Amino acid sequence: MSPKKQEYVVGIDLGGTKIYAAVVDHKGRILGVGRKRTKAELGFETTVERMAVSVKEAVAEAGVDYDEVIAVGVGSPGPLDLKRGTIIETPNLGWKDAPLKASLKNLLKRPVAIDNDGNVGLLGEFAYGAGHGCRDMVGLFIGTGIGGGVIINGKLLHGFNENAGELGHMILNPEGPMCGCGTRGCLEAFASRLAIEREIRAAVAGGAAAAIFDNVEKPDAPLRSKRLSEAFAAGDAAVVAAVEKSARYVGYGVASLLNIFNPEVVVIGGGVVEAIGEPYVRLVKQTASQNVFKIALRNVRIVAAELKDDSAVLGAAMLAWQKAYK
Amino acid sequence: MSPKKQEYVVGIDLGGTKIYAAVVDHKGRILGVGRKRTKAELGFETTVERMAVSVKEAVAEAGVDYDEVIAVGVGSPGPLDLKRGTIIETPNLGWKDAPLKASLKNLLKRPVAIDNDGNVGLLGEFAYGAGHGCRDMVGLFIGTGIGGGVIINGKLLHGFNENAGELGHMILNPEGPMCGCGTRGCLEAFASRLAIEREIRAAVAGGAAAAIFDNVEKPDAPLRSKRLSEAFAAGDAAVVAAVEKSARYVGYGVASLLNIFNPEVVVIGGGVVEAIGEPYVRLVKQTASQNVFKIALRNVRIVAAELKDDSAVLGAAMLAWQKAYK
Repeated sequence: MSPKKQEYVVGIDLGGTKIYAAVVDHKGRILGVGRKRTKAELGFETTVERMAVSVKEAVAEAGVDYDEVIAVGVGSPGPLDLKRGTIIETPNLGWKDAPLKASLKNLLKRPVAIDNDGNVGLLGEFAYGAGHGCRDMVGLFIGTGIGGGVIINGKLLHGFNENAGELGHMILNPEGPMCGCGTRGCLEAFASRLAIEREIRAAVAGGAAAAIFDNVEKPDAPLRSKRLSEAFAAGDAAVVAAVEKSARYVGYGVASLLNIFNPEVVVIGGGVVEAIGEPYVRLVKQTASQNVFKIALRNVRIVAAELKDDSAVLGAAMLAWQKAYK
Repeated sequence: MSPKKQEYVVGIDLGGTKIYAAVVDHKGRILGVGRKRTKAELGFETTVERMAVSVKEAVAEAGVDYDEVIAVGVGSPGPLDLKRGTIIETPNLGWKDAPLKASLKNLLKRPVAIDNDGNVGLLGEFAYGAGHGCRDMVGLFIGTGIGGGVIINGKLLHGFNENAGELGHMILNPEGPMCGCGTRGCLEAFASRLAIEREIRAAVAGGAAAAIFDNVEKPDAPLRSKRLSEAFAAGDAAVVAAVEKSARYVGYGVASLLNIFNPEVVVIGGGVVEAIGEPYVRLVKQTASQNVFKIALRNVRIVAAELKDDSAVLGAAMLAWQKAYK
């Protein structure tokens, strides 16, 4: 499997707001990167062209010859049709039946592999990060929404319609808050960044003091991770309560996942986890440990993601290596 | 893999109250059965001897020669240590570190394979029942407790410590009723036969009329499936409400499992489902369908178990065939 000459792949993390491309070598080292805004509102074809530009920038920065790039992998919002290589539908990009794989292959002249962002993030952590060396692994990525993925016996779980791993949509209370997916009380509706923001704003509307909105130019603008991180560190009570609630619910979700999958590693990542850090992971672990069969915890690691922003590009790169060498 | 001469296996369903053994041929036909009470309170060795007697009875009823029985499979309450072949601990049998596999092998002089009851029930339905021909399948068995199992790509999911598939202990509301496992709001605490009984008794204590306790010799005795079935059919309001609540919560659990695994088949079985039948399964399907991503439902079957009381012995028989021919 080890490449004999200079060979590289490109991983692309296609997000709702940003495109992030990276040239990666066979050891998982990032040699050059390219970034663009997604601008999904300008249409699918425009975004694909911007992805191609990001790839060219990453290749230029890496200083490699494009002939040495043998495949491209992409992590994309889903649901995806993996057989046809299309994005079936995605609320935060606004496209339907978008032929991601074919269009990108056409522009880049390379084999292209795609998978959804949760799977790709997990694959990155599995191959190069917190799950390195394990065989059975589950991941939750807590950001604007909550993505997830499952690896069983070293392989991503895709399921009958290739849409397994929607771990953010476990129901944690059927009478809970409405989720973006239309169901009440999904993990995402309790614990995502949007859920945290909603909790904080409700507390403030109810009269709680929250310095997080003081001296801010646009208090109604979406709450970014940096401000959340600072307010949590400063001990802003409404913020601490909302973040802790998120971590507790993620902990309940992890408890369920431990009883369901009995994995070796549970990795917790995404913008919220990066912003809050160790206190968040600790509360997840504590809540999970108190609500699960002891045997499902034996020698099991519940850990923070290690690759931060790079888990998806590195997972996408791993997809590309798998495509090139399968 | 197909047996060349007359060969049979014995499957044993070890339950909290009953031992059920069956001689099974390579087509999954039951040729003879033996039944005994478990009498776990008399100690592990006594129960194992009773299992051996059940096997002998089944062999006699089948009219086969014991020399033609090539292996024995057992479905047991868990958690189990599959490598050591022991029951680690089980509240409703009261044993600890019980060497099930070794003791049974010693008495029966045959290779013995064991797995937990949920897995074995699912394996029976997979091999000979509702899941025949599929590759990815999830099962929930609603009885006194709630067992479960997962088959991925044709194989039982065991996990890192061999205790995956505890689907009855998904958390469906962290502030819900206390479960026997010590966690609040597990699916089992909302939907098992014991949960249904608790709901009915609470409604009656609150003044609801419930004919289910009229003209009954011992109204405080555990509620058996037959009485539950009759009272539901008669439209006893407290009973209907409690059963429908159980089915709705199983439906929420199935929705989560569809989003997590995206299986091809979800099978719903166990004493409660057998007692209530189609109305129960219909409500499970309806609730699940309303709370899941549409793509995770495409061509997916949510069906009642087909083998009734025989799913575990037939699954145990399949374990035995796998043991004999691996």
